[in-house]
Amino acid sequence: MAGSAGPEIERLIGLLAKLPGMGPRSARRASLALLKRRDQLLLPLAEALSVAAERVKTCSVCGSLDTQDPCAICSDPQRDASLICVVEEVGALWAMERAAAFRGRYHVLGGLLSALDGMGPDALRVGPLIARAGEPQVLEVVLALPATVDGQTTAHYLAERLAGANVAVTMLARGVPVGGELDWLDDGTIAQALRARRPA
Amino acid sequence: MAGSAGPEIERLIGLLAKLPGMGPRSARRASLALLKRRDQLLLPLAEALSVAAERVKTCSVCGSLDTQDPCAICSDPQRDASLICVVEEVGALWAMERAAAFRGRYHVLGGLLSALDGMGPDALRVGPLIARAGEPQVLEVVLALPATVDGQTTAHYLAERLAGANVAVTMLARGVPVGGELDWLDDGTIAQALRARRPA
Repeated sequence: MAGSAGPEIERLIGLLAKLPGMGPRSARRASLALLKRRDQLLLPLAEALSVAAERVKTCSVCGSLDTQDPCAICSDPQRDASLICVVEEVGALWAMERAAAFRGRYHVLGGLLSALDGMGPDALRVGPLIARAGEPQVLEVVLALPATVDGQTTAHYLAERLAGANVAVTMLARGVPVGGELDWLDDGTIAQALRARRPA
Repeated sequence: MAGSAGPEIERLIGLLAKLPGMGPRSARRASLALLKRRDQLLLPLAEALSVAAERVKTCSVCGSLDTQDPCAICSDPQRDASLICVVEEVGALWAMERAAAFRGRYHVLGGLLSALDGMGPDALRVGPLIARAGEPQVLEVVLALPATVDGQTTAHYLAERLAGANVAVTMLARGVPVGGELDWLDDGTIAQALRARRPA
């Protein structure tokens, strides 16, 4: 890929190209940037990867990633144990935490139901969610799943499975995003925002 | 950045975000991809970075990157020592090698002259180029610099500096790129291609 570069550089480019959002071209650029900044970037990144590989694990309660198990959120007594927020992946959990609006705990599904990708309920952490929802302190499960076909299929499936547990099942509101100009919004969002309109 | 993720994950995200083409969001996605594929991706990348840091060096003749010095191209007796191709950076050298159309050797400038960025001739490997061009076996210097203002400024400067050496100084042709639809080409390229037109 890099022509006359040695096998060491080829291997580095090949691995970087597997990262999401990277292709052969951007992996070549990234490799050069790393090799040019050996002490400021290349060596620190190698070290950070080794440390992460060694210390980061999956939380056995919620499925998030942390250096401790149970994770910092699951073991924080300040977090409301009566609320469980269901997210697709750890990235969505981080997004919720950045919004700093949720004070409960999480459950990472590990994906969405998808007929096309052959993802059934057994491939997701559905069983552990039902078990957690059955614990006496849990009062509400918030489904924070993406507003896509697979996200909605999964939300409906989970709502049905959770009907037996003695919990309220809710989902994130739909509407105009903050800063959203109507000109730039898709028709579906505008229609949902109109149906869900509230007194001003 | 990743909310409740530990400092180990934060540090990994921070370093990945420094790679060209990466931002905070794509660095978070890349970190998650790495942590999910620990054995297939995270550990191999950590290893590849360490190996590259240890073994890849700058060629003392041409300025390229390789595990040997002089690099594989400079030490290959099959490569035509009478031809030197001047490129801005190692990435451009790799692009030339992928095209597999050049059988001479290279000289990596390490940048372009730029009044705005304060890059003068002393910041580039101009002196070593003049010295190499003065060697008796060198007959031609091909300037393969970008078709930008800085690239052209640098090419004109190098052509002047090389006027004293007994070598032909040439540059890459300008014209319609392969697969280029006239509809999509900028006016400057069309004008250059017209001025440089040849018998069909």
